[in-house]
Formats: sequence, structure tokens, C-alpha cells
Amino acid sequence: MLELKGIGASAGIAIAKAYRLEEPDLTVSKTTVADQDAEIRRFEEAIQKSKQELEKIKEHAFKELGKDKAEIFAAHLLVLSDPELLNPVKDKISSDASNAEFAMKETADMFVSMFESMDNEYMKERAADIRDVTKRVIAHLIGVELPSPSLISDEVVIVAEDLTPSDTAQLNRQYVLGFTTDIGGRTSHSAIMARSMEIPAVVGTKEATAKIENGTMVIVDGLSGDVIINPSSETIAAYEDKKKKHEAQKAEWAKLVNEPTVSKDGQHVELAANIGTPKDVKGVIENGGEAVGLYRTEFLYMGRDQLPTEDEQFEAYKAVLTNMEGKPVVVRTLDIGGDKELPYLHLPKEMNPFLGFRAIRLCLEEQDIFRTQLRALLRASVYGNLRIMFPMIATLDEFRQAKAVLLEEKAALQSKGTAVSDEIEIGIMVEIPSTAVMADSFAKEVDFFSIGTNDLVQYTMAADRMNERVSYLYQPYNPAILRLITMVIEAAHREGKWVGMCGEMAGDPIAIPILLGLGLDEFSMSATSILPARTQILNLSKEEAASYKEKILGMQTTQEVIDFVKTTFNVE
Amino acid sequence: MLELKGIGASAGIAIAKAYRLEEPDLTVSKTTVADQDAEIRRFEEAIQKSKQELEKIKEHAFKELGKDKAEIFAAHLLVLSDPELLNPVKDKISSDASNAEFAMKETADMFVSMFESMDNEYMKERAADIRDVTKRVIAHLIGVELPSPSLISDEVVIVAEDLTPSDTAQLNRQYVLGFTTDIGGRTSHSAIMARSMEIPAVVGTKEATAKIENGTMVIVDGLSGDVIINPSSETIAAYEDKKKKHEAQKAEWAKLVNEPTVSKDGQHVELAANIGTPKDVKGVIENGGEAVGLYRTEFLYMGRDQLPTEDEQFEAYKAVLTNMEGKPVVVRTLDIGGDKELPYLHLPKEMNPFLGFRAIRLCLEEQDIFRTQLRALLRASVYGNLRIMFPMIATLDEFRQAKAVLLEEKAALQSKGTAVSDEIEIGIMVEIPSTAVMADSFAKEVDFFSIGTNDLVQYTMAADRMNERVSYLYQPYNPAILRLITMVIEAAHREGKWVGMCGEMAGDPIAIPILLGLGLDEFSMSATSILPARTQILNLSKEEAASYKEKILGMQTTQEVIDFVKTTFNVE
Repeated sequence: MLELKGIGASAGIAIAKAYRLEEPDLTVSKTTVADQDAEIRRFEEAIQKSKQELEKIKEHAFKELGKDKAEIFAAHLLVLSDPELLNPVKDKISSDASNAEFAMKETADMFVSMFESMDNEYMKERAADIRDVTKRVIAHLIGVELPSPSLISDEVVIVAEDLTPSDTAQLNRQYVLGFTTDIGGRTSHSAIMARSMEIPAVVGTKEATAKIENGTMVIVDGLSGDVIINPSSETIAAYEDKKKKHEAQKAEWAKLVNEPTVSKDGQHVELAANIGTPKDVKGVIENGGEAVGLYRTEFLYMGRDQLPTEDEQFEAYKAVLTNMEGKPVVVRTLDIGGDKELPYLHLPKEMNPFLGFRAIRLCLEEQDIFRTQLRALLRASVYGNLRIMFPMIATLDEFRQAKAVLLEEKAALQSKGTAVSDEIEIGIMVEIPSTAVMADSFAKEVDFFSIGTNDLVQYTMAADRMNERVSYLYQPYNPAILRLITMVIEAAHREGKWVGMCGEMAGDPIAIPILLGLGLDEFSMSATSILPARTQILNLSKEEAASYKEKILGMQTTQEVIDFVKTTFNVE
Repeated sequence: MLELKGIGASAGIAIAKAYRLEEPDLTVSKTTVADQDAEIRRFEEAIQKSKQELEKIKEHAFKELGKDKAEIFAAHLLVLSDPELLNPVKDKISSDASNAEFAMKETADMFVSMFESMDNEYMKERAADIRDVTKRVIAHLIGVELPSPSLISDEVVIVAEDLTPSDTAQLNRQYVLGFTTDIGGRTSHSAIMARSMEIPAVVGTKEATAKIENGTMVIVDGLSGDVIINPSSETIAAYEDKKKKHEAQKAEWAKLVNEPTVSKDGQHVELAANIGTPKDVKGVIENGGEAVGLYRTEFLYMGRDQLPTEDEQFEAYKAVLTNMEGKPVVVRTLDIGGDKELPYLHLPKEMNPFLGFRAIRLCLEEQDIFRTQLRALLRASVYGNLRIMFPMIATLDEFRQAKAVLLEEKAALQSKGTAVSDEIEIGIMVEIPSTAVMADSFAKEVDFFSIGTNDLVQYTMAADRMNERVSYLYQPYNPAILRLITMVIEAAHREGKWVGMCGEMAGDPIAIPILLGLGLDEFSMSATSILPARTQILNLSKEEAASYKEKILGMQTTQEVIDFVKTTFNVE
């Protein structure tokens, strides 16, 4: 029995035999071909076969994983039709009398290294697409088979160095009970896919492929991040038990889907979900979300080569509002820049993008982009309960300007006879320290606040949340953060406004008792956290939680706060 | 009469005839030489002549400008002795039969573009050195003369595209009354030299060389940034008048050198100076500084290829403490990282260096570096009134760790019989929002605070102060900043601790009345701002300033604050 420690990427427990997903040797070397025209034909055939295969995988992905995931393969198919990639390969075959596999490899490597060096997330994804597709074409050319996870017909746990989009899209949830990989983190592609498929997964074990042989019994504990190889029968029994408890808990949670979120002493708070696309609304409803607390509209702008039109946006906003059936939907206006780049906007590179020209700063200067989005939102407003929220507001001037632009567009639409709701609430993200400190001034002018703790913590502690060397300073429970949150809540309540939170903190079991006690009105989190959070709040007394407020705000360090909450509220 | 608008880089007014400092044509082209050995000898002779010239310039700079400035030429001399540069030139002459000037140019260009592409300030400076030196060598090889500003023997205003270090070092203050350049900003090399030489200067006019002919009458107004070409006699008279007033004001200020800084109602505050090297102490004394409020120790670590030894540091700290003759000296421990890199530490590149691994974060991890500095400081402490300050403290844990390390080193030194002062105050920079918010907790454990507004503003507003696109958010007078400053001052005073400020704001005429009213105890600024600040404070009533505190802190925008201060305190 051997244990590996990795990162729990998708909750749940899988117990099954290991199935190693191994890539065949795709090494190619250069040979000289006599008949170059025949070689070009051979290349074109390999492209055709790859396309046919990808069409099949795409269909499978569409059925099993939904439209969004299937689009990965639409992108791969595009790569295989791109003359910018194919013509240089053919040229190489003709001019160098090179064999097709070598010409393909050389050309693809050139594009991959060019795109990767661009230091741009979008181009890096394109590089990954080319790499994935090239493997498939070369496999055809040299006559080896890529693994076909779709053919698995026994219950297994997949063991791999990493899983490519093609791999995961082929997984059949009936047989693939879980997976574990050597590399990856909580936000790597394979981890996101695992959560979306609800398959237990542990990633980043470093040595799963080195330690696990085909057919070995394996336990993947996506809750703790443990992988147990060759478990004893007692261990298997213990994990079967843990698995049952987890499933029973999930069943308990499921009973709360249509229940309101009311504390033990009868106080209601709103549990909302963060979403990125209209498709995510399904998960919000299934998980009992009472609202959408943050609709990140960036995804509408990403993975494309020009801005989305007003109508495209309108359709997306309308779909979310309609499908939420009158429940509140907080839409955040474009928060691009920083780590989220749009290549087609050609923004200059910045030394500190997190402190740079992004979100409302960009929208107030590039007003065409902003106004188009606002018009789409205003037109969609009649289909549901819309709330508009501006991101990265640092000064009252910025809020006033943004609101003025919104009201201008509203008046212009109305003067043309377009229906616009008169009930739209207008609020701001509180994610910059100045705005938290000035919350009393803002509270007089906004309809609501939503505290974005991911950024608020990063700026308040002056620590990049993506930088591992200062990750010890990313402290959401630091008393400084809790004091700023308190300033915001108190200022809002004095003016009769409500306060939500849409950072990761809102769904955190340690934060929930504190935030309930501080008087937070709305908690917005990933949909899958809603039912656990509801369960927790049903068992908390808001009055009791509030009674610790002064004590907690008077603490000096993060650790003091964590220790106190764990003991007092019995949180793990 | 024609007026150009530039950047006032050094205060004062110069009225004189223009002297254009023009570079001769140094274009070289490739020729083939028959006797390569002779060509190598010709090259070596040019190197010798250049070295002799540089020795002379260095001596002149040493006498006129001091040791630090002369070191620029020591660096140039080193370049001319560097086999890494010289050997490739000789190789090129031998192997390509290339003429020496072309071989020199090609080789130098290669190094320059390599160093410049490194995105590292230190290497960029090395590139500038090579460029400067290469010009001199080529001038000798092709038989043209570089301009010799040292030969100027009439009163002139120099007009140039830009001034190189060699140019400025040769300027004779007796004849060069001022200068104006096409390029450069307030922190460019030529601007810094102008201030250090106290020559009025306007840089960045874009078209000074295009519009000003040799011998034309020119007025350079370093106060306003105006350059007037061919002024009328009325204009000359008006500027003579302005010049006299400025000089009279300087004379008034000079009278206050040995006066204490006391408000109209008898309240003393301390006016201190920010310094970077022991040499700067002279300016502090000359300008009536009551203390050093910030000694930036980074310069000890920069422009070299390894860490300074404990003894090197000890000598520098001892010199500052000794020369300040018992007046307080606040030494900030190493604040490296962020925009200040040390190539020899090989720190990984960060996406957001301002939110990264720098200052105390680095010192607590690389404790050898930190402990060496602390030992040097502790040993020097017996030579004066030392205060030690830790930068970038974000949490109480960090302060406790840093202080513990300091006390460990103190105990270790004492146990070896080394004398250490028992009067050293230990404080922190308040430049991270969390620390301002938690000032009450910190105030119980530190001896003093020094508010670093440059960073505090940047983090509180989430706006990179070096990024022009968000410069509108760099708002020191934003009420959010003033509220944080107030939190810090009130928390400190409740515990009987003092609060200083060492950001640019401390010397700003608009900030001074506000800060005086908020109760700031120490104002640390560039030495040349001390006497104007003293003049301003002598004319302010602290009680009156304090009476506006609630009003100012209740304002909503930066503009409201500025307008109020300008009207109420009669500030320009």
C-alpha cells in the first residue's frame, strides 16, 4: 500500500483498477522522399482521417459534455483546415523532399514556439490546440494509434501524466470513475473538466504514472487529494464508507435545493452563484441558487478575434435573465485587462497588469465597447430581474461617469421606443481598498455593493494572488480585510443598501459564520458550494455570530481568526 | 520671440546666448584593410587616447561634481579595459580584415542591443556606458572631435538633443548658466545632474535643437518649464525680475537653515530629508534638515556584481550617523525587488513585481542578506542616533519576525563584546493598506511609523504609479488616503508613538497644511524641499489646520480636497 499526495481537483471518491492512458511514441525523423506529390497526397489523407476522427470525438463531447466542451474540437478542426499551417508543410515536402511527418512536426513546432512566446493566454491556448492536433496527424502518418479513452468498457480510474482536451472529451462517465495525473493544479484544464463531469479527481501527484501500474487497485480521494495504491481490504472498506457518507451528504444537500437560506434564528440571507456563460444557469438552478450574484461577461469577449456584437450580447443576457425566471441576476460589465487579455484590442503590455488599465478604467476610455454592452444589457433588462455592476471602481468620479453613460444609453434607447426596465439596480464591485474606505460616500449613490474579495485581498495585502512566493500574504481572514468588509456593510446598511460578496471567500466554511455575523446580505459562490453553504447557515445563529464581531475585528493575526472560528463554530 | 514648453527639471532662471552642443558625424562604413596588425595597433592607440581623455574628464568631474559623479567615468574606463569588448573587435579586424572603426561599431552595437533587450535597469545603464565610450573611440579613429563643453568660456545656455554623462560632467557652472534639451523627463540622467549642479534646466522640449540657433538669446525657466527664444527686451526684463525674486526667495529660505520648524501657534514638527548615499548628508545639513527621515540603503547594493560586505555597509552607515552629528537617522532596511532589481540575486521575473517578492518579504526568506545588513547597522548604531525601519510590512507576523531577527543579531554581537546602542528605535513603513487599517495593533509593538505614500497610494487605488494610462488614479489627496493616514496617526498617538511620512507627499505644499492638521510629527522629503516647507509651516496655525480635519475627511473626491486647501490656506 502506497500513498501519493496531490491536489483534490474534483470532490468524491473513486475505487477501481488503474487504466494507464499512455501516449505512443510519436518521434519522427527526417527522410528524403522520391515522389513528393505522392507524399503530399499521403499528408492530405492523414489530415482527412484526423478530421473524421475529430468529428466523432466532437459529437461524443457534445452529447456527454455539452456544447461548450465540444467547441474545443471545433477549434481543432479549424486548425486542420488552416492553410497558414498546411501550406508550409506542403512547401516543405516539395522543396526539401522531406517526409510528411517530419515536415508537419517542424512546421507545428515553429508555430507552437511562436505562439507560446507571446506571453498571452489566448495564443498559448492556440499553441496547445496545434500541439494536440499535430499528435493526431503524426499518429496517422506513422501508423500508431492514439489512446482511445472512449473504448474503455470496464470501471477504471485513469492514470496519466496529464489529460488533453481530446482525452477528457472522450471519457465515458459510466466507466471512468475517477482520474489522477502527475501534473496540473486546481485550475488546470483537466481539473475543470473533472468538476464539470463530476468525476472525482486528484491532479498534480507528480508521480502517479511512475508508481501506478496498469490494473493496480487505486483509490482516488478528490476530497483530501490522496491517492492510495494497492489499498488493503480494510482501507478499501474505510473508503467505501467515506464514499457512502459523501454521497449521503450530497443527497442531504440535494433536499435543500428548493429551501430558503435561513439561519437558526430565522434570518434570511441570499445564496447566489457566480456564472460565466448562459449555459451555467442550469447548474445554478440544480444547486438551488437564489440568484446569480456575479455574471462574468468576459467569456463573451474571449476566444474570438473581434468584439461581440450588441445582438450577440443581448441574446446571452436575455438567455440568463429568462432562464433565471425572475430571480435577480447581477451582471458585471466588462472586466478585461490585468490577467485577462483580448488580443484583438491590442492593449499595450504593462509592467503590473493587476494595477493597470483594466475593467472600468478601460471601459470609460474605450466608450464604444462599454456603450455596446450597456445597450445590450438595457435591452435585455425587460426579460428578468437585472442588476448592473461596475468592476474596479476606485473613485466616486468613476462611478458617476459610468452611471451617467448608462443613463445616457437608457434615455437614447427609450427615445427610440425600445423597452427598458425601470427597476434595474446599479451597483459596484468593492475590490479596491479606497472604495472600501470610502464606502460611506459610495453608499449614498449606489444601489448595492458586491465585495470582490479575490482582488480586495490582493490589493489590501499588496500581494499578487497568482505569485507563489507571496502566497502566504493572500489572507482573506486577515483582520484588516474583515475590518474593510465591516466598513462596507455598515456604510451600506446606514443608507438602506444591501451588500453581497462574490469572491471565493463567500463560499468558504470558515468565512461564512464571520460574514453572517457581520451582516452580509448576499453570498455569491460557485454553484456547487451553495448547498453545503446552505446546510451550514441553517445550523448557525446570526445573532450569536454577530455577538463575536468586536472580538474578531480586534484580533491581530489571520491565525487567531481561523483558530477562533474553528473552535467556536465547529468548522473543519 | 518663440516659446517652447518643456519639463522644468531644475529650478531657477537662466538668460544667455545659446550654445549648441552638437555631435559630429560619427557614421562609419566597412572597408578592407591590408595590414591587419597595423589596424589593430591603430585601434589600440585610439583606446589609449580615449582612456587619457576620460581620465581628464574624470578628474574634472571629481573636482566639480564630487566622487559619485566621477564614478561614471571610472565605469567608462573599465569598459575600455574589458577584454570581452576589445577582443571581439580585434578578432573582427583579423578575421574580416575589417577597418577598426567598423569593427568597433559592430561589436558595440551587438553588446548594446543585447544589454538593452534585458529589460533590466542595470544592464540598460551598461548599454548607455558602452554607447558613450564607443563614440569617443570612433571619434579618435576617424579623426573628428567630440564637443568639449569644458572649453566653454562665455556665459551660455546649452542646447542639445540630450546630454550624456560625459557632457554634463564637463560643464563648468561658472559659464554654463542653464540648459535645455529635446528629450528627457524629470528623472532622466540630465535632469538629475542639473539639480545636483543647481543649474536651471528645461528638458523634453521636443524641438529645442530644431528651433534654437547658435548665439540666439534664450531664457530657460526651470520653474515653469518654459524656454523663450529671442525674447523682447521687456520679456528679458520681466524674467530678470522673476530671477531676482527666485534668488531672493532662496536667500530668505537660506536664513531658516538653522531655525526650528514651528507653526504660527508654537507647535514643533520635524523636517527631515530622504537620502540615498552618505554623500547626500551634506545637502541635508546645508538645507537645514533636522533628521534623515529615510535612508534608502538600496544604492549600496546596486551597480555592482555582488552583495556589499558587512564592513562596506558598516562604513556607509557610520558615515551617515557621524555626519548627522547626533540628529536622528531612520535607515530603511533593504527594499529590493519590484522595480528595483539586483541582477546578481537572480530573482525570477514576476507578472506584477509591485505586488511581488520584495523588501521585507525577500529579507525574511533570504536571511543571510538581511542579517548582514542588520549587523552592520547595529555595529554603526554607537556613532549616532539610529532608527531602523522595515519596509513593506503587511502583517504583524512579519514585523515580529523581522524584529526577532534584529534582536537575535544584537544579542549575538553583544555576547561577542561588540558595542551596540540600546537606544535604537524600531519602526515600520506604512505603505500597504492592511498595515494602515491595522495600525492600532502595530502601534502597540513598534516604536514609530513612517508612512510611505508613494506605495500606499498605489496599492490603495490599485494603480501602478509608473503606468501613464492609470496615472489619473494616483491621487495622494483622495479622501481614502487621508483617512488611512488619519487612522495611522491616531493609532500611534494613542500609544504615545510618533508618525513620520517619507513619500513625495510630505514635501508637497498642498499636503503640508492637511498633514499638519492631522497631527503628523515628522515630514521627510528631498533636501531641497525642506526650506520651502519650513517657510510654509512657520506661517500655518496647527490648531486652525486641525479644525478642518473632519470636514476634509468627509469630502468625497480629490478635487474637493485640493480646491479647499488652495482656497483656505492660500496655496498655489
